[in-house]
This record gives sequence, structure tokens and C-alpha cells, in this order.
Amino acid sequence: MADQYAQSGEHNRSAGMSAIRWDEPPEGPVLALLDQRRLPAEEVELVCTDAPALVDAIRTLAVRGAPLLGIAGAYGVALAAARGFDVDEAAAALEAARPTAVNLAVGVRRALAAYRAALAGGGDPRQAAEAALSAARALHREDAEASARMARHGLALLDELLPGGGHRVLTHCNTGALVSGGEGTAFAVALAAHRAGRLRRLWVDETRPLLQGARLTAYEAARNGMAYTLLTDNAAGSLFASGEVDAVLIGADRIAADGSVANKVGSYPLAVLARYHHVPFIVVAPVTTVDPDTPDGASIEVEQRAGHEVTEVTAPRVPVAGAEAGGGIPVAPLGTQAYNPAFDVTPPELVTAIVTEEGAVSPVTAEALAALCDRSRQVTI
Amino acid sequence: MADQYAQSGEHNRSAGMSAIRWDEPPEGPVLALLDQRRLPAEEVELVCTDAPALVDAIRTLAVRGAPLLGIAGAYGVALAAARGFDVDEAAAALEAARPTAVNLAVGVRRALAAYRAALAGGGDPRQAAEAALSAARALHREDAEASARMARHGLALLDELLPGGGHRVLTHCNTGALVSGGEGTAFAVALAAHRAGRLRRLWVDETRPLLQGARLTAYEAARNGMAYTLLTDNAAGSLFASGEVDAVLIGADRIAADGSVANKVGSYPLAVLARYHHVPFIVVAPVTTVDPDTPDGASIEVEQRAGHEVTEVTAPRVPVAGAEAGGGIPVAPLGTQAYNPAFDVTPPELVTAIVTEEGAVSPVTAEALAALCDRSRQVTI
Repeated sequence: MADQYAQSGEHNRSAGMSAIRWDEPPEGPVLALLDQRRLPAEEVELVCTDAPALVDAIRTLAVRGAPLLGIAGAYGVALAAARGFDVDEAAAALEAARPTAVNLAVGVRRALAAYRAALAGGGDPRQAAEAALSAARALHREDAEASARMARHGLALLDELLPGGGHRVLTHCNTGALVSGGEGTAFAVALAAHRAGRLRRLWVDETRPLLQGARLTAYEAARNGMAYTLLTDNAAGSLFASGEVDAVLIGADRIAADGSVANKVGSYPLAVLARYHHVPFIVVAPVTTVDPDTPDGASIEVEQRAGHEVTEVTAPRVPVAGAEAGGGIPVAPLGTQAYNPAFDVTPPELVTAIVTEEGAVSPVTAEALAALCDRSRQVTI
Repeated sequence: MADQYAQSGEHNRSAGMSAIRWDEPPEGPVLALLDQRRLPAEEVELVCTDAPALVDAIRTLAVRGAPLLGIAGAYGVALAAARGFDVDEAAAALEAARPTAVNLAVGVRRALAAYRAALAGGGDPRQAAEAALSAARALHREDAEASARMARHGLALLDELLPGGGHRVLTHCNTGALVSGGEGTAFAVALAAHRAGRLRRLWVDETRPLLQGARLTAYEAARNGMAYTLLTDNAAGSLFASGEVDAVLIGADRIAADGSVANKVGSYPLAVLARYHHVPFIVVAPVTTVDPDTPDGASIEVEQRAGHEVTEVTAPRVPVAGAEAGGGIPVAPLGTQAYNPAFDVTPPELVTAIVTEEGAVSPVTAEALAALCDRSRQVTI
């Protein structure tokens, strides 16, 4: 059975609790996760000692966010190997924990491939386990490095676009260390500006319906000592109108070949407001987010999520996404139908720049994006 | 002490429960209110038998909405008079129940003036009480008539702007029978379109932070058998982008002399989206909403509301506005600062038309608005 236990994070609060951490206490290796279901009310580490515990953590959204899931999956394979469990069985269970999360499967397979290659090359199980752990650590490190490079490129762009400094940045959803092996995407840029003393204010959209902004981005901003203010998504208009937003920084779920950006619902209205007020609208995402097989915005299928996310309010501590039934408190009449798209699509003409770990593209054109992806492929090869 | 009791509204559900109703059972006159704190979970009438009960209902938001508060205040004076209580004391207490609600004071004073005039003219207390009740009923009737005229003018405008019929209308906040002696403002127009068989869809913004759209507009739409769909405020962008909004209909808290419209926060972003997508943005409000002493949008002071409305979620049944402490469940880290303007200001160039009971103004100019107000004044005199 799943073997996991919780430990309070008070003791290492000042050092900053990691979203994910491999540890090797005398009792044997463990994977420690910051339990995101309990944020922002409590900081608790969930310690997984085997793969079923991690599967459970993934299923119940204790750990979430595309890049972070990939890293967790890779460490999960390493954990099974290091503890002497059936590695193939663990890998299959981890992949199936959230079948639509592509990064999860990619991470699992990378560690599994390293494990098998070591065995095939004549290594013993201990050496194969070390190979799996090395693969997981490499993925973790690469993701952190990509974050750092996006932050650097993004801050350079901000400084270029806003030479006066004292940036007042509006962001949407959660794009920080809670979804990444490093410091994230859009949030990492804001954090770099903060560390450079050039962030005057981070405006945090609450991000209905699941409130990732209120729950997670506000938490990360507070943890990093940033000057931040929370707002309802529809109050952003007033901020633009009164000239209090210098730039919008968001992440991306997928970027089409023409530069259309699919991201959390509410991004597109911000892009329209930004254009109307002549404010830069900047998308920060790793090159892997660009999908050359999706030609344009119209080709992106928008997932409709369950209506209860809108018709009920759900308090933290209960998993807010992916719950089978609503479990919340109804706020609308019973039987109310809801329109609840998971994300929206912003056309390239509304995007000032796309910042990746390989540099920024501005203006956003199919040609410039393709060139960036080519460059990235050469680096990888 | 306040004397009030609740009665279930199941028995007259099909007939439609009124937001406010004067009744004269054998035990003596009462003022029956639809308890808005319990919506949409339950339909319960709150029956007030004296002015302190009504003061309590006003304070705790069982009854709310500018025009409705005026009517309630007038009936409250009539109730005190009919039951033989101290009318001056009752009037003072009612006015003080929500000091910033101008309509409340206006309604109270109108009934009080009628009461005093009757006494001064030699009437006995019973005749004076009847005069107060007549004044309250006149105010109630005038408000209902204004609603009906706004609905008529608004539907005519919709039909003119959208000759194809099958209107898909987006609305924000609550502007229906729950805030009015009649059927409201913007909502009344959508309802008229529904009755004429020309409303294909009412898109209902949930209207964060207090969720008046989810709680109250969805309730009114369901009660009236309208085809409606609820959405988070930030999902409106996707609807515009996919061409599923034919017009936006909103109310107004105040309209400046230049045609700038102050309304519930989230109205301005809809105006910008509507302009970007060439969709009419229509404001529906009585002529009294136009304030000639406010020259322009910049002169409108925007009230900042308590941060806990954003940092906590509150379930229905608990009064959602005006509570002293939050009383909700925290969703953001403790100590989070929130930007929570009560309303925003839409400049006249983004407003396609302002519809009043005296007709519509389009394009919206200071001159056209002034002419409309002059016409209204002549009619009143």
C-alpha cells in the first residue's frame, strides 16, 4: 500500500520549501513533496517512500503542474528502483496516474529508459537505480536551468520595454516554483525583477474558477517577500484604466505554430485590455510548449471543464481540481448550466513577445517561432 | 424589538414571489420581503410587522438594491403609521439603516412628507397613515412603470441593432426584479426579449467578488424560464472571440453628465471586449441615475471595498456584503492585500447606447443626455 507521511515545514521555512525534493535519510530514500492541496493555509511536506504513495499524491493533486509532474514521475521510477520494488509496474502506475499529463509520461519514460539501459549494459540493480536517479536529477536540473534562462531573457525584455524601472506587472494563474523544477515561467521573470530591485508591484489575478492566483501565486509572492496585491479577475480593467499596469506576464499551455497562445481562461481578455491600453503582453514558456503540429489558434481544441467549478465554491484543503463530484457549496440555483472553458486562445497579433529559454521572439510570427525552435533543436542535439 | 417571521414561499412559487409586498392580513398590515440572503438556496418571505424589523432586514441585506430600498423605506414609514408607532422615530431609524443608500432616504422622506401633509391638512392619524401608504404605493408603481418603459425601449433598440433576432445577450451583476419595484433595468430588457421569443441565450457573468450574477441573476433567469448559462467573469473573452455574444446589457450605479458610466466592477472590461469585437454595449438605467453634478468619469470617486471579499470565499445564507468581519473561508495567504474596487467607469465612447424610461440616447453625448434629462423633468413637473 501507499506509504506516505506528512511533516510540518516550519523548520525550513526561511530556506524555502521545495515543491519537490529527493532525500536519503538513514531509513532509505524518499521523495518529499510540498502538499499543494493544503496551500496556502499550511505548508506540509508529503513524504513518499514508494511509487503507490506518489501515484496517490499525483491523483489527488498534492503535486501538479506540467513540468513538475514530469520530474515527479522520473523520481518515482528512481524511488521504486532504489527501494527494490518492481520498476516496470511502478512506471506503468505512475504514467496512468494522470493519463492526459504528457510531461508525466515523458519523465517516467526517461528514468525508465536510463534504468533499463544500465541493466542492459551489464549493470546490477543498484547501478540501474543510480542511473534512474541520475536521469531524474538531470530532468530536474534542466527544468531549473530553463527557468533561470527564461527569467533572464524576460527581465532583459522588461527592462528594454520599460526603461524607467519600477515595473508594475500583472499576472494570471500560477506559473512559479510550484509547477516547475526551478522558479517557473512568467512568475520567474517577476521574481527576477523583484530580486533586481525593479519590481514595484505584482498584481495577482485570483484566476477563477479554481483560484490558482489567490491560493498559489499569492503564496509564492508572499514567500518571496514581493510587493503583491490580489484582485478579482474583472478588476484588472480598472487597473489598466488608471495606468497602474506596465506589463502583463503570463505562461502558456500550448503555443501554435503561428504564435497563437492557449493559456488559462482569462488570458485573452487581458491581452485585449493590454492592447487597448498600449501595455506589453508577454508570454513566458519553454520552447517545448511550441507545438509545430498545431498550425493556428483555430486548431486548438478547448477543453470544457465541469460546471460545478463555477456553480459551487470550494474551500482549500479539499482538492479543488479534478474532484469527481463537486463537493463544494452551491452558489447558483441547482440545475444551472455553466460555460467553463479551461483556457482561451490569444492570437499572435495581441502578443508583444514570447520569451523562451532560448531567447525572446518579438514580433510574434510563424517564421520567428520556427527559427527559435530550430535553434533549440540544434542545441539539444 | 424587531418583530419579523419567515414563511416558505413554496405555495406561490408559480405565481412568482415579489421582492417586496404590502399585505393586510386580519392581524394587521405587514411588509413581506423575499429574503435575498437565502437565495438561491431557499425562497423565504421575511414578514416585517414593524419598522425595527425592516431596519434589521435592510442592515443584514435581506433586502437590497437602490430602487427597492427606496420603496422599502417608504413602506416602512407607512407600516409604522398604520400600526400606530412613532412615525418620526421610525423614519429616522430607516434612513440610518444604510446611510450611503440615497434612494432609501428619498423613499423614507417621500412617505414621511405625505404623512405630515395629511396631518397638517387636518387629517387624523388613520388618514395620515393612508397618505403614507399611498405615497409608498405610488413610488412602487412609478418604479415598476419605469422598468416596463426601459424594457420596451431596450427591446426596440436590440431589435434595431440586431435585425436577425435570436439575441444572445451577456449581462453582469444583478439588475432584475430583486433590485426594483418592477422587473429591473438591463435584466428587464432581456426578459422582454425572452417573452417576445427573441432571446436565444442569456450569458450570466458570475460577478466576483460577491457573485450577484451566480446567486441572483441566475435565480431570476431560472424563475422566468429563460435560456441562461453562467460563466466566470474571465470566460466572457472566449465567448466574444467565438462570436457568441450579440450584445452586452448592463445597469448603472451613476452616469456622469458626459455619459461616463459607473457600474459594478467588471463592466469596463466587457466594454473594451465589446468594442474590440464590434458588439453593442448597452447601458439600461432610469433617468435619475444621470447625475448632472458629476461632469465626467474622472470625477466619480470609486469606493474601495473590504479585502476579505476577495481573500475569503463566503457561502450563501451568510450575508455576503457588508458583514463586519469576513466570516468566510480564507483562500489566499493570511495578510494578503487586495485591490477591491466596488465599480469601474466606462467612458462614453465605449457605450453604444444608454436606455432610460424616457427613451434611448445613441451616440452617447453630453448634449443628448442633457436633452433627455430636460425632457424627463418636464414630464415629471
